[in-house]
Amino acid sequence: MSKIVAEKLDQAVALLREYKLDCWITFVRETGQVMDPALDLITGFGLTWVSALIITASGRKIAIVGRYEADNVRKLEAWDEIIGYDTAIEPHLRDVLSKLDPQSIGLNYSLSDPASDGLTFGMYAKLAQLLAGTPYPARFTSAEDVVRRLRERKSTTERARVQTAIARTHDLYAKLFALPVRGMTEIEIHRQAGVYAAELGAEFGWERLTDPIVNAGPDSSIGHGIPAELVVTPGQVLHIDMGLRVNDYCSDFQRNAYILREGETTAPEPVATAWAACRAALEAGRAAIKPGIAGVEVDTAARTTMVQQGYPEFMHAFAHHLGRRVHDGGGILGPRWQKYSDLPNKPIERGAIYAIELGTMVEGHGYLGLEENVVVADAGAEYLTTPQTELILL
Amino acid sequence: MSKIVAEKLDQAVALLREYKLDCWITFVRETGQVMDPALDLITGFGLTWVSALIITASGRKIAIVGRYEADNVRKLEAWDEIIGYDTAIEPHLRDVLSKLDPQSIGLNYSLSDPASDGLTFGMYAKLAQLLAGTPYPARFTSAEDVVRRLRERKSTTERARVQTAIARTHDLYAKLFALPVRGMTEIEIHRQAGVYAAELGAEFGWERLTDPIVNAGPDSSIGHGIPAELVVTPGQVLHIDMGLRVNDYCSDFQRNAYILREGETTAPEPVATAWAACRAALEAGRAAIKPGIAGVEVDTAARTTMVQQGYPEFMHAFAHHLGRRVHDGGGILGPRWQKYSDLPNKPIERGAIYAIELGTMVEGHGYLGLEENVVVADAGAEYLTTPQTELILL
Repeated sequence: MSKIVAEKLDQAVALLREYKLDCWITFVRETGQVMDPALDLITGFGLTWVSALIITASGRKIAIVGRYEADNVRKLEAWDEIIGYDTAIEPHLRDVLSKLDPQSIGLNYSLSDPASDGLTFGMYAKLAQLLAGTPYPARFTSAEDVVRRLRERKSTTERARVQTAIARTHDLYAKLFALPVRGMTEIEIHRQAGVYAAELGAEFGWERLTDPIVNAGPDSSIGHGIPAELVVTPGQVLHIDMGLRVNDYCSDFQRNAYILREGETTAPEPVATAWAACRAALEAGRAAIKPGIAGVEVDTAARTTMVQQGYPEFMHAFAHHLGRRVHDGGGILGPRWQKYSDLPNKPIERGAIYAIELGTMVEGHGYLGLEENVVVADAGAEYLTTPQTELILL
Repeated sequence: MSKIVAEKLDQAVALLREYKLDCWITFVRETGQVMDPALDLITGFGLTWVSALIITASGRKIAIVGRYEADNVRKLEAWDEIIGYDTAIEPHLRDVLSKLDPQSIGLNYSLSDPASDGLTFGMYAKLAQLLAGTPYPARFTSAEDVVRRLRERKSTTERARVQTAIARTHDLYAKLFALPVRGMTEIEIHRQAGVYAAELGAEFGWERLTDPIVNAGPDSSIGHGIPAELVVTPGQVLHIDMGLRVNDYCSDFQRNAYILREGETTAPEPVATAWAACRAALEAGRAAIKPGIAGVEVDTAARTTMVQQGYPEFMHAFAHHLGRRVHDGGGILGPRWQKYSDLPNKPIERGAIYAIELGTMVEGHGYLGLEENVVVADAGAEYLTTPQTELILL
């Protein structure tokens, strides 16, 4: 882990220069309660007592943390100066800032990007209170550009870890689709995924309750539904959406099977046609990905391909970042809906890793959901997953 | 889970009346990035799209969530009205608030209590922006009293769940101390705890990286240290701090063993004396716990008992709440150090569950750390754990 922290701290210094920010402070406490996602990258673990993690454009990396956690930070061998305090952070914080005298201080808040918005309202007020009477509260600004880019620009080490998580997920899907799924319930398949994950040494990428999402047929709760007592039955689509975390990095992709009825050797026409339409739209979106273009353009390519083939719009964004978390980094490839704020306008960066996805409900059969993981290269998006090009027939 | 959510929502309505707050809004998004701990109690799961969970003193419970998560909220059977939206929360939020017209709107922010401070700075600003031009932003206030009490006042169901987590932790400790620990490293014991937890169907209460904390001898990193390659050796104290989560509720307590040297049948005098002193101080603290008194009084009872016996002050608070999380609720039983803000002054409530703890380093032998879990009854604190009264001799 320490290797990635060191890489990310160096990258943070470069980003502070690129965005002309003097200093970046991650200000946290009791992250077992509220975890600032920026800590994923700059420590790799949580902190209990009020802590300030300070990085400057001049390359200084200073951690002020509770005494009982200073050793953990020391062992990262990535921070220059580690101050472990007992009763009050205030004198240390004032002392460090007065020596650095930064002209701008970036904090982790953002209206649009959740990954850059780890500072709570109470902690913002507390920081201003601790620094009352100094010039520093007036120099607070958002560090969102730095934090977002730090998540989005994956290093080679990070990309390799995502690929490992993807490989384990392929392994787990192979085991799940080898199960005698006819007659099993969503809950049973979900439970069995837990056993396989433990055997593979993987954790789940999001809350266990809904990871994997298992949709058996048309009556299942689509989207982020909790697995239910629905039984897998011939004539149905069995759709699974799963993410795994391996060595701190995540995968997130979906797979689809059709449960053959007696006498059938292929999926019926409405399922096969919808599958082909979804595949075409997913490929149209993937083909549109290029460094520098706005996310909304990619989303539009996929969305209009669905609509032109006579299918409804999918009611979510086409793609989200993937990395330390399954929803990682801010700039989504999505439509300009109010709930996405200005995120769809952000340019796509080289090296970014996305989960691209869309789907449709096939009446009487169930939900088809396609999702793959890609990395952005100069020429466009390359698959990190082995994409599902054909429905699995069971 | 649904049963607890229904219980907690009813309790929330009563608390809004008690604290004369018209309305309480939990306002979240992408909780896979930043999780507001209030969601533990009012949904039991995270939410992806911008969501507003609105509870009023008149007893209304309205959830405005992304369409793909509305079904999960519906299945709780605890919310009266569930609005699942597609593109923008704004019209729904404005509509609901204009009908309710609350005179005060509590939000999840607090300078002192992390568990009541789940609203990010960006989300606070976003809420104000979505309601611009209405009278409501001017009616925002902190909901911290309501949120804190909601965590702290455990229902019978919640207490039973903590007891189950404690029972599993006793089981796991029994397995760990039955291991041939001489010659094992901290890392090996930590790894083995993972195997046992999986067998017992338990998750860890805090980050796996430091749960359990394993301290072998005097060179180990005390506090929240990450297990290292240190070897368990005769003459050492082996100290373990572990929390488990079972069915969403947590335990958190510590255990200590002395590794006998050849010819020894008991721990040497400095270890035995320190053990007795720690036990006396822990009991002094426990005896001081009574509903209504300030947390600092309890801390002082334990702290002065340590000092009067010639041992240094422990450099942390004596007790923290325990429940959905290992550090649960805000009012700690601790000293009036700046880092604890006004939390030590909060009165102790009947039904609260605490982890009480203290310890000391015995030179040349290692760290002794005592921690037990108690519930506050009318007459005082009752043990939920079977307390460790004697050192384990191995």
